[in-house]
Amino acid sequence: MCHACVIENVRSSMLSRRALFTGAAATGAAAIALGALSARPALAQATGRVIDLTHAWDGDFPTFDGLPGITYEPDKTIEADGYQLWKLTLFEHSGTHIDAPMHFSADGISVDEIPVEQLICPLCVIDISAKAAEDANATLDPEDIEAFIAANGDIPAGALVAMHSGWAAKVADTTYRTNEAGDFAFPGFSKAATDMLAGMEVAGIGVDTLSLDPGNSPDFGVHNSWLPGGRYGIENLAGLDQVPATGATVFVGAPKHKRGTGGPGRIIAVA
Amino acid sequence: MCHACVIENVRSSMLSRRALFTGAAATGAAAIALGALSARPALAQATGRVIDLTHAWDGDFPTFDGLPGITYEPDKTIEADGYQLWKLTLFEHSGTHIDAPMHFSADGISVDEIPVEQLICPLCVIDISAKAAEDANATLDPEDIEAFIAANGDIPAGALVAMHSGWAAKVADTTYRTNEAGDFAFPGFSKAATDMLAGMEVAGIGVDTLSLDPGNSPDFGVHNSWLPGGRYGIENLAGLDQVPATGATVFVGAPKHKRGTGGPGRIIAVA
Repeated sequence: MCHACVIENVRSSMLSRRALFTGAAATGAAAIALGALSARPALAQATGRVIDLTHAWDGDFPTFDGLPGITYEPDKTIEADGYQLWKLTLFEHSGTHIDAPMHFSADGISVDEIPVEQLICPLCVIDISAKAAEDANATLDPEDIEAFIAANGDIPAGALVAMHSGWAAKVADTTYRTNEAGDFAFPGFSKAATDMLAGMEVAGIGVDTLSLDPGNSPDFGVHNSWLPGGRYGIENLAGLDQVPATGATVFVGAPKHKRGTGGPGRIIAVA
Repeated sequence: MCHACVIENVRSSMLSRRALFTGAAATGAAAIALGALSARPALAQATGRVIDLTHAWDGDFPTFDGLPGITYEPDKTIEADGYQLWKLTLFEHSGTHIDAPMHFSADGISVDEIPVEQLICPLCVIDISAKAAEDANATLDPEDIEAFIAANGDIPAGALVAMHSGWAAKVADTTYRTNEAGDFAFPGFSKAATDMLAGMEVAGIGVDTLSLDPGNSPDFGVHNSWLPGGRYGIENLAGLDQVPATGATVFVGAPKHKRGTGGPGRIIAVA
Protein backbone atom coordinates (compact mmCIF):
# COMPACT_ATOMS: atom_id res chain seq x y z
CA MET A 1 0.00 0.00 0.00
CA CYS A 2 1.40 3.35 -1.00
CA HIS A 3 2.04 5.14 2.29
CA ALA A 4 1.51 8.58 0.78
CA CYS A 5 -1.99 7.76 -0.39
CA VAL A 6 -5.23 7.23 1.43
CA ILE A 7 -6.79 4.48 -0.62
CA GLU A 8 -9.51 2.23 0.64
CA ASN A 9 -8.10 -1.20 1.21
CA VAL A 10 -10.08 -3.48 -1.02
CA ARG A 11 -7.64 -6.31 -1.00
CA SER A 12 -9.59 -8.24 1.60
CA SER A 13 -12.27 -8.75 -1.04
CA MET A 14 -9.85 -9.88 -3.67
CA LEU A 15 -8.00 -12.97 -4.65
CA SER A 16 -4.43 -12.75 -3.49
CA ARG A 17 -2.17 -10.81 -5.79
CA ARG A 18 0.00 -13.88 -6.24
CA ALA A 19 -2.96 -15.79 -7.65
CA LEU A 20 -3.48 -13.04 -10.21
CA PHE A 21 0.08 -13.17 -11.49
CA THR A 22 -0.83 -15.36 -14.40
CA GLY A 23 1.01 -13.53 -17.14
CA ALA A 24 -0.53 -14.74 -20.37
CA ALA A 25 -4.02 -14.91 -18.88
CA ALA A 26 -4.22 -11.16 -18.96
CA THR A 27 -7.85 -10.98 -19.99
CA GLY A 28 -9.12 -13.13 -17.17
CA ALA A 29 -6.99 -11.37 -14.61
CA ALA A 30 -8.23 -8.01 -15.81
CA ALA A 31 -11.83 -9.03 -15.40
CA ILE A 32 -11.21 -10.11 -11.84
CA ALA A 33 -9.14 -7.09 -10.91
CA LEU A 34 -11.48 -4.55 -12.47
CA GLY A 35 -14.44 -6.06 -10.70
CA ALA A 36 -12.76 -5.32 -7.42
CA LEU A 37 -12.29 -1.68 -8.40
CA SER A 38 -15.97 -0.96 -7.94
CA ALA A 39 -15.30 -0.83 -4.20
CA ARG A 40 -12.77 1.91 -4.75
CA PRO A 41 -11.27 4.58 -3.53
CA ALA A 42 -10.98 7.52 -1.23
CA LEU A 43 -9.19 10.36 -2.98
CA ALA A 44 -5.56 10.78 -2.21
CA GLN A 45 -4.94 13.51 0.29
CA ALA A 46 -3.60 16.30 -1.86
CA THR A 47 -1.68 19.40 -0.91
CA GLY A 48 -3.20 21.26 -3.80
CA ARG A 49 -0.42 21.51 -6.38
CA VAL A 50 -2.09 21.07 -9.76
CA ILE A 51 0.01 19.66 -12.62
CA ASP A 52 -1.24 19.48 -16.18
CA LEU A 53 -0.25 16.19 -17.82
CA THR A 54 -1.75 17.25 -21.17
CA HIS A 55 0.04 18.81 -24.13
CA ALA A 56 -1.58 21.80 -25.81
CA TRP A 57 -1.86 20.66 -29.40
CA ASP A 58 -2.95 21.41 -32.94
CA GLY A 59 -2.19 20.08 -36.40
CA ASP A 60 1.56 20.39 -35.81
CA PHE A 61 1.50 17.91 -32.92
CA PRO A 62 3.32 14.67 -33.80
CA THR A 63 1.14 11.70 -34.76
CA PHE A 64 1.89 8.06 -35.35
CA ASP A 65 1.25 8.24 -39.10
CA GLY A 66 2.78 11.66 -39.52
CA LEU A 67 -0.41 13.28 -40.80
CA PRO A 68 -2.13 16.18 -38.99
CA GLY A 69 -4.27 14.84 -36.16
CA ILE A 70 -6.64 17.81 -36.23
CA THR A 71 -7.73 20.43 -38.74
CA TYR A 72 -9.73 23.60 -38.11
CA GLU A 73 -12.37 25.25 -40.22
CA PRO A 74 -14.13 28.46 -39.11
CA ASP A 75 -17.82 27.79 -38.52
CA LYS A 76 -18.88 31.04 -36.83
CA THR A 77 -16.87 34.25 -36.67
CA ILE A 78 -17.01 37.35 -34.49
CA GLU A 79 -17.29 39.51 -37.59
CA ALA A 80 -20.22 37.67 -39.16
CA ASP A 81 -21.95 36.13 -36.15
CA GLY A 82 -20.87 38.00 -33.01
CA TYR A 83 -19.23 34.86 -31.63
CA GLN A 84 -16.83 32.27 -32.92
CA LEU A 85 -16.30 28.53 -33.02
CA TRP A 86 -14.43 25.95 -35.05
CA LYS A 87 -15.57 22.95 -36.98
CA LEU A 88 -12.87 20.43 -36.12
CA THR A 89 -11.88 17.30 -37.97
CA LEU A 90 -9.78 15.00 -35.85
CA PHE A 91 -8.51 11.48 -35.72
CA GLU A 92 -9.31 9.98 -32.33
CA HIS A 93 -5.76 8.92 -31.44
CA SER A 94 -4.15 12.36 -31.61
CA GLY A 95 -2.72 14.70 -29.00
CA THR A 96 -2.66 13.54 -25.39
CA HIS A 97 -5.34 10.88 -25.77
CA ILE A 98 -7.04 7.80 -24.40
CA ASP A 99 -6.91 4.33 -25.97
CA ALA A 100 -10.13 2.52 -25.06
CA PRO A 101 -10.25 -1.30 -25.17
CA MET A 102 -12.30 -1.09 -28.38
CA HIS A 103 -9.31 0.45 -30.19
CA PHE A 104 -7.75 -3.03 -30.44
CA SER A 105 -10.70 -5.36 -29.89
CA ALA A 106 -13.95 -5.61 -31.83
CA ASP A 107 -15.93 -6.35 -28.68
CA GLY A 108 -14.04 -4.13 -26.24
CA ILE A 109 -15.74 -1.32 -24.39
CA SER A 110 -15.74 2.11 -26.00
CA VAL A 111 -14.27 5.21 -24.40
CA ASP A 112 -17.64 6.37 -23.03
CA GLU A 113 -18.11 3.00 -21.35
CA ILE A 114 -14.98 3.11 -19.19
CA PRO A 115 -16.35 3.15 -15.61
CA VAL A 116 -15.97 6.67 -14.27
CA GLU A 117 -14.47 5.34 -11.03
CA GLN A 118 -11.48 4.22 -13.10
CA LEU A 119 -10.82 7.79 -14.24
CA ILE A 120 -9.78 9.16 -10.84
CA CYS A 121 -6.69 7.27 -9.85
CA PRO A 122 -3.68 7.14 -7.59
CA LEU A 123 -0.80 8.01 -9.94
CA CYS A 124 2.35 5.90 -10.04
CA VAL A 125 5.19 7.23 -12.19
CA ILE A 126 7.94 4.80 -13.16
CA ASP A 127 11.01 6.67 -14.38
CA ILE A 128 13.00 4.98 -17.13
CA SER A 129 14.54 8.18 -18.44
CA ALA A 130 18.10 7.05 -17.71
CA LYS A 131 17.91 4.03 -19.99
CA ALA A 132 15.78 5.89 -22.53
CA ALA A 133 18.59 8.42 -22.86
CA GLU A 134 20.83 5.53 -23.94
CA ASP A 135 18.30 3.67 -26.10
CA ALA A 136 15.43 5.43 -27.86
CA ASN A 137 13.48 2.14 -27.95
CA ALA A 138 13.98 1.39 -24.25
CA THR A 139 11.15 -0.47 -22.56
CA LEU A 140 9.60 -0.36 -19.14
CA ASP A 141 10.22 -3.93 -17.99
CA PRO A 142 9.04 -6.12 -15.10
CA GLU A 143 12.26 -5.31 -13.24
CA ASP A 144 11.35 -1.61 -13.38
CA ILE A 145 8.02 -2.39 -11.75
CA GLU A 146 9.71 -4.54 -9.13
CA ALA A 147 12.21 -1.78 -8.38
CA PHE A 148 9.38 0.75 -8.15
CA ILE A 149 7.52 -1.43 -5.64
CA ALA A 150 10.66 -2.02 -3.63
CA ALA A 151 11.17 1.72 -3.36
CA ASN A 152 7.57 2.91 -3.04
CA GLY A 153 5.44 0.01 -1.86
CA ASP A 154 2.71 -1.81 -3.75
CA ILE A 155 0.88 -0.26 -6.67
CA PRO A 156 -2.33 1.15 -5.10
CA ALA A 157 -5.72 -0.22 -6.14
CA GLY A 158 -7.12 1.62 -9.13
CA ALA A 159 -3.80 3.17 -10.07
CA LEU A 160 -2.75 4.74 -13.33
CA VAL A 161 0.78 3.52 -13.96
CA ALA A 162 2.70 5.97 -16.12
CA MET A 163 6.00 5.52 -17.89
CA HIS A 164 8.24 8.59 -17.61
CA SER A 165 10.88 8.35 -20.31
CA GLY A 166 11.69 12.03 -20.67
CA TRP A 167 10.22 12.03 -24.17
CA ALA A 168 7.75 14.86 -23.54
CA ALA A 169 10.65 17.30 -23.73
CA LYS A 170 11.24 16.25 -27.37
CA VAL A 171 7.67 16.85 -28.51
CA ALA A 172 8.58 19.72 -30.85
CA ASP A 173 11.43 17.76 -32.41
CA THR A 174 11.43 14.99 -35.03
CA THR A 175 13.24 12.76 -32.52
CA TYR A 176 9.97 12.45 -30.60
CA ARG A 177 8.91 10.02 -33.34
CA THR A 178 11.87 8.81 -35.39
CA ASN A 179 15.63 8.36 -35.20
CA GLU A 180 18.21 9.70 -37.64
CA ALA A 181 17.55 6.78 -39.98
CA GLY A 182 13.87 7.76 -40.13
CA ASP A 183 12.72 4.67 -38.22
CA PHE A 184 10.17 4.85 -35.40
CA ALA A 185 12.16 5.18 -32.19
CA PHE A 186 10.62 5.94 -28.80
CA PRO A 187 10.23 4.15 -25.46
CA GLY A 188 7.22 2.09 -24.43
CA PHE A 189 6.02 -0.66 -22.13
CA SER A 190 7.23 -4.23 -22.71
CA LYS A 191 4.46 -6.81 -22.97
CA ALA A 192 5.98 -8.65 -20.02
CA ALA A 193 5.52 -5.51 -17.92
CA THR A 194 1.88 -4.98 -18.87
CA ASP A 195 1.22 -8.70 -18.33
CA MET A 196 2.52 -8.17 -14.80
CA LEU A 197 0.34 -5.08 -14.32
CA ALA A 198 -2.67 -7.01 -15.65
CA GLY A 199 -2.39 -9.14 -12.53
CA MET A 200 -2.75 -6.11 -10.29
CA GLU A 201 -5.67 -3.77 -9.58
CA VAL A 202 -4.40 -1.25 -12.14
CA ALA A 203 -6.99 0.90 -13.95
CA GLY A 204 -4.82 2.08 -16.82
CA ILE A 205 -1.34 2.72 -18.13
CA GLY A 206 0.13 5.85 -19.64
CA VAL A 207 3.20 6.86 -21.64
CA ASP A 208 4.91 10.12 -22.50
CA THR A 209 5.47 8.88 -26.06
CA LEU A 210 3.41 8.22 -29.18
CA SER A 211 2.57 4.64 -28.30
CA LEU A 212 2.11 2.19 -25.43
CA ASP A 213 4.49 -0.08 -27.41
CA PRO A 214 8.04 1.04 -28.13
CA GLY A 215 8.84 2.49 -31.56
CA ASN A 216 10.56 -0.69 -32.79
CA SER A 217 7.72 -3.00 -31.75
CA PRO A 218 7.14 -5.61 -34.47
CA ASP A 219 3.64 -6.58 -33.33
CA PHE A 220 1.97 -3.97 -31.06
CA GLY A 221 2.14 -6.61 -28.35
CA VAL A 222 0.99 -4.27 -25.58
CA HIS A 223 -1.87 -2.78 -27.58
CA ASN A 224 -2.96 -6.27 -28.60
CA SER A 225 -3.08 -7.65 -25.05
CA TRP A 226 -3.60 -4.80 -22.56
CA LEU A 227 -6.51 -3.17 -24.40
CA PRO A 228 -8.39 -6.41 -25.20
CA GLY A 229 -7.89 -7.21 -21.50
CA GLY A 230 -10.36 -4.44 -20.75
CA ARG A 231 -8.09 -1.67 -19.52
CA TYR A 232 -7.28 1.70 -21.03
CA GLY A 233 -4.09 3.45 -22.03
CA ILE A 234 -3.01 7.07 -22.39
CA GLU A 235 -0.46 8.29 -24.93
CA ASN A 236 1.53 11.53 -25.24
CA LEU A 237 1.43 12.47 -21.56
CA ALA A 238 3.20 15.67 -20.51
CA GLY A 239 4.54 16.91 -17.20
CA LEU A 240 5.54 13.60 -15.63
CA ASP A 241 8.78 15.22 -14.50
CA GLN A 242 6.71 17.46 -12.22
CA VAL A 243 4.85 14.81 -10.23
CA PRO A 244 6.12 12.51 -7.48
CA ALA A 245 6.58 8.78 -8.07
CA THR A 246 3.59 8.14 -5.80
CA GLY A 247 1.08 10.16 -3.82
CA ALA A 248 -0.54 12.22 -6.57
CA THR A 249 -4.12 11.74 -7.71
CA VAL A 250 -4.75 11.89 -11.43
CA PHE A 251 -8.00 12.86 -13.17
CA VAL A 252 -8.32 11.19 -16.56
CA GLY A 253 -10.64 13.38 -18.58
CA ALA A 254 -11.51 10.82 -21.23
CA PRO A 255 -13.90 12.03 -23.94
CA LYS A 256 -17.39 10.57 -23.80
CA HIS A 257 -18.59 10.25 -27.37
CA LYS A 258 -20.48 7.01 -27.91
CA ARG A 259 -18.74 4.14 -29.71
CA GLY A 260 -15.44 6.01 -29.44
CA THR A 261 -12.23 3.97 -29.66
CA GLY A 262 -10.58 6.70 -27.61
CA GLY A 263 -9.80 10.32 -28.19
CA PRO A 264 -8.08 13.47 -27.01
CA GLY A 265 -8.58 14.04 -23.29
CA ARG A 266 -7.50 16.23 -20.42
CA ILE A 267 -5.23 14.64 -17.84
CA ILE A 268 -4.55 16.58 -14.65
CA ALA A 269 -2.71 15.53 -11.49
CA VAL A 270 -3.03 16.94 -7.99
CA ALA A 271 0.00 16.31 -5.79
CA MET B 1 -16.59 29.51 3.75
CA CYS B 2 -18.21 26.24 2.85
CA HIS B 3 -17.95 24.21 6.02
CA ALA B 4 -17.89 20.91 4.14
CA CYS B 5 -14.84 21.85 2.10
CA VAL B 6 -11.22 22.19 3.01
CA ILE B 7 -10.22 25.08 0.84
CA GLU B 8 -7.23 27.24 1.48
CA ASN B 9 -8.37 30.59 2.76
CA VAL B 10 -7.07 33.14 0.32
CA ARG B 11 -9.39 35.92 1.28
CA SER B 12 -6.79 37.65 3.42
CA SER B 13 -4.95 38.47 0.21
CA MET B 14 -8.02 39.80 -1.53
CA LEU B 15 -10.01 42.94 -1.70
CA SER B 16 -13.14 42.61 0.36
CA ARG B 17 -15.99 40.91 -1.42
CA ARG B 18 -18.11 43.98 -0.94
CA ALA B 19 -15.58 46.03 -2.92
CA LEU B 20 -15.84 43.52 -5.76
CA PHE B 21 -19.61 43.75 -5.99
CA THR B 22 -19.46 46.16 -8.85
CA GLY B 23 -22.01 44.61 -11.15
CA ALA B 24 -21.42 46.15 -14.53
CA ALA B 25 -17.65 46.23 -14.07
CA ALA B 26 -17.54 42.48 -14.53
CA THR B 27 -14.36 42.43 -16.55
CA GLY B 28 -12.30 44.32 -14.02
CA ALA B 29 -13.67 42.36 -11.11
CA ALA B 30 -12.92 39.11 -12.90
CA ALA B 31 -9.32 40.12 -13.45
CA ILE B 32 -8.88 40.88 -9.75
CA ALA B 33 -10.66 37.78 -8.55
CA LEU B 34 -8.87 35.43 -10.94
CA GLY B 35 -5.51 36.85 -9.96
CA ALA B 36 -6.21 35.76 -6.39
CA LEU B 37 -6.95 32.22 -7.57
CA SER B 38 -3.29 31.56 -8.21
CA ALA B 39 -2.88 31.04 -4.47
CA ARG B 40 -5.52 28.33 -4.56
CA PRO B 41 -6.64 25.48 -3.26
CA ALA B 42 -6.29 22.36 -1.27
CA LEU B 43 -8.51 19.64 -2.68
CA ALA B 44 -11.76 19.05 -0.94
CA GLN B 45 -11.65 16.11 1.38
CA ALA B 46 -13.59 13.53 -0.51
CA THR B 47 -15.21 10.36 0.65
CA GLY B 48 -14.62 8.79 -2.73
CA ARG B 49 -18.04 8.79 -4.39
CA VAL B 50 -17.41 9.58 -8.05
CA ILE B 51 -20.21 11.20 -10.06
CA ASP B 52 -20.03 11.70 -13.80
CA LEU B 53 -21.39 15.11 -14.79
CA THR B 54 -20.94 14.37 -18.51
CA HIS B 55 -23.51 13.05 -20.96
CA ALA B 56 -22.48 10.24 -23.29
CA TRP B 57 -23.21 11.70 -26.72
CA ASP B 58 -23.18 11.28 -30.46
CA GLY B 59 -24.87 12.91 -33.44
CA ASP B 60 -28.28 12.49 -31.83
CA PHE B 61 -27.40 14.70 -28.87
CA PRO B 62 -29.34 18.00 -28.90
CA THR B 63 -27.50 21.05 -30.19
CA PHE B 64 -28.31 24.72 -30.21
CA ASP B 65 -28.76 24.90 -33.99
CA GLY B 66 -30.41 21.49 -34.25
CA LEU B 67 -27.73 20.03 -36.54
CA PRO B 68 -25.62 17.00 -35.54
CA GLY B 69 -22.73 18.11 -33.33
CA ILE B 70 -20.52 15.19 -34.33
CA THR B 71 -20.22 12.83 -37.27
CA TYR B 72 -18.17 9.64 -37.51
CA GLU B 73 -16.23 8.21 -40.44
CA PRO B 74 -14.30 4.95 -40.14
CA ASP B 75 -10.59 5.61 -40.57
CA LYS B 76 -9.12 2.24 -39.54
CA THR B 77 -11.06 -1.00 -39.10
CA ILE B 78 -10.33 -4.27 -37.32
CA GLU B 79 -10.97 -6.16 -40.55
CA ALA B 80 -8.59 -4.16 -42.73
CA ASP B 81 -6.07 -2.86 -40.21
CA GLY B 82 -6.23 -5.01 -37.07
CA TYR B 83 -7.35 -2.02 -35.00
CA GLN B 84 -10.01 0.64 -35.33
CA LEU B 85 -10.49 4.36 -34.95
CA TRP B 86 -12.81 7.09 -36.13
CA LYS B 87 -12.23 10.26 -38.05
CA LEU B 88 -14.55 12.66 -36.22
CA THR B 89 -15.98 15.93 -37.42
CA LEU B 90 -17.35 18.00 -34.61
CA PHE B 91 -18.51 21.47 -33.81
CA GLU B 92 -16.76 22.69 -30.67
CA HIS B 93 -19.88 23.62 -28.73
CA SER B 94 -21.52 20.20 -28.74
CA GLY B 95 -22.19 17.61 -26.03
CA THR B 96 -21.21 18.46 -22.47
CA HIS B 97 -18.72 21.16 -23.37
CA ILE B 98 -16.65 24.14 -22.28
CA ASP B 99 -17.18 27.73 -23.43
CA ALA B 100 -13.81 29.50 -23.33
CA PRO B 101 -13.68 33.32 -23.12
CA MET B 102 -12.63 33.41 -26.79
CA HIS B 103 -16.03 32.01 -27.81
CA PHE B 104 -17.54 35.46 -27.28
CA SER B 105 -14.53 37.78 -27.41
CA ALA B 106 -11.97 38.24 -30.15
CA ASP B 107 -9.15 38.72 -27.65
CA GLY B 108 -10.31 36.28 -24.97
CA ILE B 109 -8.19 33.33 -23.92
CA SER B 110 -8.69 30.06 -25.75
CA VAL B 111 -9.68 26.81 -24.09
CA ASP B 112 -6.08 25.57 -23.85
CA GLU B 113 -5.11 28.80 -22.08
CA ILE B 114 -7.50 28.46 -19.13
CA PRO B 115 -5.17 28.12 -16.11
CA VAL B 116 -5.19 24.49 -15.04
CA GLU B 117 -5.71 25.51 -11.40
CA GLN B 118 -9.14 26.77 -12.42
CA LEU B 119 -10.15 23.30 -13.65
CA ILE B 120 -10.19 21.61 -10.22
CA CYS B 121 -12.85 23.38 -8.23
CA PRO B 122 -15.09 23.27 -5.21
CA LEU B 123 -18.53 22.59 -6.70
CA CYS B 124 -21.56 24.65 -5.72
CA VAL B 125 -24.90 23.49 -7.08
CA ILE B 126 -27.79 25.95 -7.02
CA ASP B 127 -31.09 24.16 -7.47
CA ILE B 128 -33.75 26.06 -9.39
CA SER B 129 -35.65 22.96 -10.48
CA ALA B 130 -38.85 23.99 -8.68
CA LYS B 131 -39.27 27.20 -10.62
CA ALA B 132 -37.97 25.60 -13.84
CA ALA B 133 -40.81 23.08 -13.57
CA GLU B 134 -43.20 26.04 -13.72
CA ASP B 135 -41.38 28.10 -16.34
CA ALA B 136 -39.13 26.53 -18.99
CA ASN B 137 -37.26 29.83 -19.34
CA ALA B 138 -36.68 30.24 -15.61
CA THR B 139 -33.46 32.00 -14.62
CA LEU B 140 -31.01 31.59 -11.80
CA ASP B 141 -31.22 35.05 -10.22
CA PRO B 142 -29.25 37.00 -7.60
CA GLU B 143 -31.81 35.97 -4.98
CA ASP B 144 -31.02 32.31 -5.68
CA ILE B 145 -27.35 32.98 -5.03
CA GLU B 146 -28.21 34.88 -1.84
CA ALA B 147 -30.41 32.03 -0.66
CA PHE B 148 -27.68 29.52 -1.46
CA ILE B 149 -25.14 31.51 0.58
CA ALA B 150 -27.57 31.88 3.46
CA ALA B 151 -28.04 28.12 3.54
CA ASN B 152 -24.52 26.95 2.70
CA GLY B 153 -22.09 29.74 3.48
CA ASP B 154 -19.98 31.75 1.07
CA ILE B 155 -19.08 30.51 -2.39
CA PRO B 156 -15.59 29.01 -1.91
CA ALA B 157 -12.62 30.50 -3.75
CA GLY B 158 -12.15 28.94 -7.16
CA ALA B 159 -15.64 27.44 -7.27
CA LEU B 160 -17.58 26.15 -10.20
CA VAL B 161 -21.13 27.39 -9.70
CA ALA B 162 -23.62 25.11 -11.43
CA MET B 163 -27.30 25.67 -12.15
CA HIS B 164 -29.38 22.56 -11.52
CA SER B 165 -32.69 23.01 -13.33
CA GLY B 166 -33.62 19.36 -13.78
CA TRP B 167 -33.20 19.70 -17.52
CA ALA B 168 -30.68 16.84 -17.86
CA ALA B 169 -33.56 14.39 -17.45
CA LYS B 170 -35.11 15.76 -20.66
CA VAL B 171 -32.04 15.30 -22.82
CA ALA B 172 -33.60 12.64 -25.06
CA ASP B 173 -36.76 14.71 -25.56
CA THR B 174 -37.45 17.68 -27.81
CA THR B 175 -38.47 19.67 -24.70
CA TYR B 176 -34.78 19.84 -23.78
CA ARG B 177 -34.51 22.51 -26.49
CA THR B 178 -37.90 23.87 -27.48
CA ASN B 179 -41.45 24.25 -26.20
CA GLU B 180 -44.63 23.09 -27.92
CA ALA B 181 -44.61 26.20 -30.09
CA GLY B 182 -41.15 25.29 -31.35
CA ASP B 183 -39.45 28.20 -29.59
CA PHE B 184 -36.23 27.84 -27.64
CA ALA B 185 -37.23 27.20 -24.03
CA PHE B 186 -34.80 26.16 -21.29
CA PRO B 187 -33.46 27.66 -18.06
CA GLY B 188 -30.24 29.66 -17.75
CA PHE B 189 -28.43 32.20 -15.65
CA SER B 190 -29.70 35.78 -15.57
CA LYS B 191 -27.08 38.42 -16.37
CA ALA B 192 -27.70 39.98 -12.95
CA ALA B 193 -26.69 36.66 -11.36
CA THR B 194 -23.49 36.28 -13.34
CA ASP B 195 -22.64 39.93 -12.68
CA MET B 196 -22.90 39.07 -9.00
CA LEU B 197 -20.70 35.98 -9.42
CA ALA B 198 -18.18 38.06 -11.38
CA GLY B 199 -17.53 39.91 -8.13
CA MET B 200 -16.59 36.69 -6.37
CA GLU B 201 -13.64 34.33 -6.69
CA VAL B 202 -15.59 32.03 -9.01
CA ALA B 203 -13.64 30.10 -11.67
CA GLY B 204 -16.55 29.13 -13.89
CA ILE B 205 -20.28 28.58 -14.21
CA GLY B 206 -22.16 25.58 -15.52
CA VAL B 207 -25.68 24.71 -16.64
CA ASP B 208 -27.59 21.49 -17.27
CA THR B 209 -29.13 23.04 -20.41
CA LEU B 210 -28.02 24.00 -23.90
CA SER B 211 -26.93 27.51 -23.00
CA LEU B 212 -25.65 29.71 -20.17
CA ASP B 213 -28.46 32.10 -21.18
CA PRO B 214 -32.11 31.01 -20.96
CA GLY B 215 -33.83 29.87 -24.15
CA ASN B 216 -35.81 33.10 -24.55
CA SER B 217 -32.76 35.36 -24.16
CA PRO B 218 -32.91 38.21 -26.69
CA ASP B 219 -29.24 39.12 -26.50
CA PHE B 220 -27.04 36.33 -25.04
CA GLY B 221 -26.39 38.72 -22.17
CA VAL B 222 -24.52 36.16 -20.05
CA HIS B 223 -22.38 34.89 -22.92
CA ASN B 224 -21.57 38.47 -23.89
CA SER B 225 -20.43 39.54 -20.41
CA TRP B 226 -19.27 36.49 -18.44
CA LEU B 227 -17.02 35.07 -21.16
CA PRO B 228 -15.40 38.39 -22.17
CA GLY B 229 -14.83 38.85 -18.41
CA GLY B 230 -12.26 36.06 -18.65
CA ARG B 231 -14.15 33.15 -17.07
CA TYR B 232 -15.38 29.92 -18.58
CA GLY B 233 -18.75 28.23 -18.80
CA ILE B 234 -19.94 24.64 -19.14
CA GLU B 235 -23.12 23.62 -20.94
CA ASN B 236 -25.15 20.38 -20.97
CA LEU B 237 -24.03 19.13 -17.57
CA ALA B 238 -25.46 15.83 -16.34
CA GLY B 239 -25.82 14.28 -12.91
CA LEU B 240 -26.29 17.44 -10.84
CA ASP B 241 -29.10 15.67 -8.97
CA GLN B 242 -26.49 13.27 -7.58
CA VAL B 243 -24.12 15.76 -5.97
CA PRO B 244 -24.52 17.79 -2.79
CA ALA B 245 -25.08 21.55 -2.90
CA THR B 246 -21.58 22.03 -1.52
CA GLY B 247 -18.64 19.87 -0.52
CA ALA B 248 -17.88 18.08 -3.78
CA THR B 249 -14.77 18.71 -5.84
CA VAL B 250 -15.23 18.91 -9.58
CA PHE B 251 -12.64 18.13 -12.22
CA VAL B 252 -13.25 20.09 -15.43
CA GLY B 253 -11.60 18.10 -18.21
CA ALA B 254 -11.51 20.90 -20.77
CA PRO B 255 -10.02 19.97 -24.14
CA LYS B 256 -6.60 21.44 -24.87
CA HIS B 257 -6.47 22.10 -28.60
CA LYS B 258 -4.75 25.40 -29.35
CA ARG B 259 -6.89 28.40 -30.35
CA GLY B 260 -10.02 26.48 -29.32
CA THR B 261 -13.12 28.48 -28.43
CA GLY B 262 -14.16 25.56 -26.24
CA GLY B 263 -15.11 21.99 -26.89
CA PRO B 264 -16.48 18.72 -25.54
CA GLY B 265 -14.93 17.84 -22.20
CA ARG B 266 -15.18 15.39 -19.33
CA ILE B 267 -16.62 16.73 -16.11
CA ILE B 268 -16.36 14.51 -13.01
CA ALA B 269 -17.21 15.25 -9.40
CA VAL B 270 -15.95 13.55 -6.27
CA ALA B 271 -18.21 13.94 -3.25
